Amino acid sequence: MTSDPQSLARQIDSTLLAAETTPDQIDRLCDDAIEHGFHSVFVNPIYVGRAVRRLEWSGVVVGSVAGFPLGADHADTVVDQARRVLDEGAREVDMVAWIGGIVAGDSRGVVETIHRVACVVHGGGAGRILKVILEAGTLNEEQIRLGCRCAAEGEADFVKTSTGFHKSGGATVEQVRLLHRCAAPLKVKASGGIRDLNAALAMLDAGAARIGTSSAVAIVDESRRHVAR
Amino acid sequence: MTSDPQSLARQIDSTLLAAETTPDQIDRLCDDAIEHGFHSVFVNPIYVGRAVRRLEWSGVVVGSVAGFPLGADHADTVVDQARRVLDEGAREVDMVAWIGGIVAGDSRGVVETIHRVACVVHGGGAGRILKVILEAGTLNEEQIRLGCRCAAEGEADFVKTSTGFHKSGGATVEQVRLLHRCAAPLKVKASGGIRDLNAALAMLDAGAARIGTSSAVAIVDESRRHVAR
Repeated sequence: MTSDPQSLARQIDSTLLAAETTPDQIDRLCDDAIEHGFHSVFVNPIYVGRAVRRLEWSGVVVGSVAGFPLGADHADTVVDQARRVLDEGAREVDMVAWIGGIVAGDSRGVVETIHRVACVVHGGGAGRILKVILEAGTLNEEQIRLGCRCAAEGEADFVKTSTGFHKSGGATVEQVRLLHRCAAPLKVKASGGIRDLNAALAMLDAGAARIGTSSAVAIVDESRRHVAR
Repeated sequence: MTSDPQSLARQIDSTLLAAETTPDQIDRLCDDAIEHGFHSVFVNPIYVGRAVRRLEWSGVVVGSVAGFPLGADHADTVVDQARRVLDEGAREVDMVAWIGGIVAGDSRGVVETIHRVACVVHGGGAGRILKVILEAGTLNEEQIRLGCRCAAEGEADFVKTSTGFHKSGGATVEQVRLLHRCAAPLKVKASGGIRDLNAALAMLDAGAARIGTSSAVAIVDESRRHVAR
């Protein structure tokens, strides 16, 4: 369990997806990401071009979302969304799986869309990454296992706990452990409700390889204070 | 202020947009809509084809959403979403305005997308309706006024209070009154958190022409009990 501020920052997707987010806030998100050395910023599709321009040559990756946050779009729409954000320079796409399909046990429908998006993402160039969000808080253990199998079969790179927008809440340590066990060799991204250093470290300790949070600066600042002590 | 169950039902968009919604639940939503005479069912894009088939010849309209619920997709995506659901037989589209653009005062960007979607919707045939969701709970009064002007300039048919998915909450009577005053001749749809008859009637009394709710059956049942008394 690391609390070295630099390596922690490199595991963080600094995220700002709220509906009311303005262009100015996206600029600040990008500038903070450069200052603190976050792995990436995650922004809604409308802001991808802006973030890519702001982060040119910085080494900070831009990620965006597809089928977000309900996972109930037409498959064609989700594929198009992924293609558009990649065209504008995003390197990672977090898509929401068809949650109702997982609940209903329709794994073929769930896998199909994931696989179509995976082809677009991985065809977009080396190092492009697809994460599949399972909204684990609304699923039981069996459904989470099914979701992990669908993500693996669809050739995603990560499974991700939550959107952060569902009333069932954000990531829990138990969910991250379960995903880590079921989805390997896929990696795990923990996100939703991770607001302080302890929460972030607990997720990494449980097997998360990436943390999605809108409290990235606060978390890394807290980590620096720990080191300074 | 009417509480005649039939006319009330005809003002209701019976809505089921939760991420975990299964195909079976959509079928039940449709069957309930026929039984109670709701104006429409509102479903996510992935379920539009299914609902249209289920409701053939029933007179119940199918509606769906675009740019939902964050309003921060590429304009091209929102336009495509609208086109796809219309192609599959939806007759009404509830799109979320670019909320961050309203907050930032970028009315040109907000109007442009609305107008592109309006052209697609109204080009889809007579009686097709576009509603623009403002997520009023996250806006101040001046921003709500701006949102109404954008919806009117973009040639939408309705303004709508809320998505029901934002942490700022659902519709209030004050918001509906304000929208009714500012957006005329556009109509007003109240939605988000309307769960009983009193709430529904208060919205209609404040000027709403349409109610979006996932408690449609409960509300109309309550209205019938009032009449029977």
